[in-house]
Amino acid sequence: MTNIKPRKAIEEMEDYSPPLEERRGKLRLDFNENTVGCSPKVLEAINNINEVEIAAYPEYAKFKGNLAASLKIKPEQLMINNATDESIMVIMQTYIEKGDEIVLPVPTFAMFRFYADLVEGKIKEVLYRPDLRFPTKSVINAISKKTKLVILCNPNNPTGSAIEKKDVIKILEKAQKSDALVLLDEAYYQYSGIDCLDLVNEFDNLIIIRTFSKAYGMSGLRLGYAVSNAYVMESLLKVASPYSVNTVAVVAASVAIEDDDYVNWYVSEVKKAKKIIYEELKKLKLKTYPTAGNFLVVKFVGKVDEVENALREREILVRNRSKYPLLKDCLRIGIGTVKQTRQLINALKEILK
Amino acid sequence: MTNIKPRKAIEEMEDYSPPLEERRGKLRLDFNENTVGCSPKVLEAINNINEVEIAAYPEYAKFKGNLAASLKIKPEQLMINNATDESIMVIMQTYIEKGDEIVLPVPTFAMFRFYADLVEGKIKEVLYRPDLRFPTKSVINAISKKTKLVILCNPNNPTGSAIEKKDVIKILEKAQKSDALVLLDEAYYQYSGIDCLDLVNEFDNLIIIRTFSKAYGMSGLRLGYAVSNAYVMESLLKVASPYSVNTVAVVAASVAIEDDDYVNWYVSEVKKAKKIIYEELKKLKLKTYPTAGNFLVVKFVGKVDEVENALREREILVRNRSKYPLLKDCLRIGIGTVKQTRQLINALKEILK
Repeated sequence: MTNIKPRKAIEEMEDYSPPLEERRGKLRLDFNENTVGCSPKVLEAINNINEVEIAAYPEYAKFKGNLAASLKIKPEQLMINNATDESIMVIMQTYIEKGDEIVLPVPTFAMFRFYADLVEGKIKEVLYRPDLRFPTKSVINAISKKTKLVILCNPNNPTGSAIEKKDVIKILEKAQKSDALVLLDEAYYQYSGIDCLDLVNEFDNLIIIRTFSKAYGMSGLRLGYAVSNAYVMESLLKVASPYSVNTVAVVAASVAIEDDDYVNWYVSEVKKAKKIIYEELKKLKLKTYPTAGNFLVVKFVGKVDEVENALREREILVRNRSKYPLLKDCLRIGIGTVKQTRQLINALKEILK
Repeated sequence: MTNIKPRKAIEEMEDYSPPLEERRGKLRLDFNENTVGCSPKVLEAINNINEVEIAAYPEYAKFKGNLAASLKIKPEQLMINNATDESIMVIMQTYIEKGDEIVLPVPTFAMFRFYADLVEGKIKEVLYRPDLRFPTKSVINAISKKTKLVILCNPNNPTGSAIEKKDVIKILEKAQKSDALVLLDEAYYQYSGIDCLDLVNEFDNLIIIRTFSKAYGMSGLRLGYAVSNAYVMESLLKVASPYSVNTVAVVAASVAIEDDDYVNWYVSEVKKAKKIIYEELKKLKLKTYPTAGNFLVVKFVGKVDEVENALREREILVRNRSKYPLLKDCLRIGIGTVKQTRQLINALKEILK
């Protein structure tokens, strides 16, 4: 064996291997994806792509212009990335020196800690409230002159918790006084209807990240973006890989941003299904929590692994989050269409009877 | 303006913005791509992709198994990445602490320095020979106990210089004695025919990176990979993003690795064109250098910008490398098909007459 060791920070990092294999053909309620697929117009564009588009390096200027216009921002306020994983990494690489403090409400999306660990940021965790509501006061109190970055996920994955816009503003104000940046992940904003994008022009310390992986149904293409002011963006764009987004994602998203009807239809379908799932879970006497996303947390006291496995036997995939703080005995269950939700409920009825 | 500054290393980094816009439809001899396109079989697979493959997260296990088998390595020796840019970044992030020494023969591909700067590695440059041949002795002499990483690009971009396998071995031996890793970039190995992949089983300090962007004609899809021993790979895989490669790249490459005929045809076409370009440039009394790649360096004394611009007016794109060490007055010119090469030569004849 070689004597060449990785960085100590890497040796200490935990392995993160999400269970992403052999999911096709099953009912995918485990990764908060669009459970139907991308829009037919998006698929048509992909199926008409030609060999030169595949062979040539990607081009972004036109798409960035169109995306910026659709968001009512300037192109210089925008960075497109190989999904928001890259956005998070770039933000960390740009701003976080070893030991810099990052305020992170938990439980939350695993990749925040992953990329913080990579750059040796020091995470200061703030626990969500026992009822899984967002702990606004605790977050504000956690921010100090030592804080370099505050991470908000709105709505939060995996809890579904919403942060009201007025609370986002309070946090931005406190962070601004402390010279801290705020990274606001809006991966699921279409479901919550809470949109803080206009705040990037009011607060010079805000970076918002969004994705085409979720409501748009394009997880396979890996496309996300970050929005901030032009000054912050100048630094981020120095760090981002100059050609990390693939051409197919650009072609697909160019069509997707012109096809609001599809996302609107899917979001309204999820909302119908959400109403049904809460009603049915209540009948089953299961403890649930409110969600602003297309997923919810459900408690299966004393039998969480058993239920997860019984669902998997029925080709229904959900995510076991029972090892996360506050989420003992909990599964995170995606909300798909009404029909898919009926399928889930029927399976749960069988399993729990 | 915000008081929040990026890391000092980022402030000091130079901006890297390759000229990648509005290239489609022109003769692309500027980025060493396949100038024809991806294989028809690859395109067919892309054009048959369905909406669920786009909506679901990518799955890699089957493809990794097939790619490993085609390379005659074990799957645990393999990492697939969002192009070799990500491979380089992951290798740097895994092994390079601030101030660690990296031996880098120059001039070479810009992204090595880019990612070294990002992690604050200390680059020790070794100049290529004046005739642009690989400086084996100087590289060996530059490696010391202080060296953490040695970077080799074979054949080298932009010079086209080959490193003979016996010289790669000499460098690996010296690096091994110094507890240094060797990162060997084989982006263009199909053209040189020099393949060091079997050395990963002989030397525990070797990481080889390769790409589907060049001979395979898939730059738009962003797919590269790294090969090493399982021990090194374990650390690299901890750092790599768990889902950075998009599904279309996986679908396309699964077909591409079964379609050797296409790459073999393209490589043989480039070799025919290479013979012609050297003959014709000699007739034009232009100074050239030997190349083992699908590109070559040509000197246009006193008129390099003029020739570059005149070619661009004729919709022929080449890369001006005259600011690089040793490459004063030089353009890097891609070698495409015989027909495309004739088009280039005719344009040069017009411009230089």
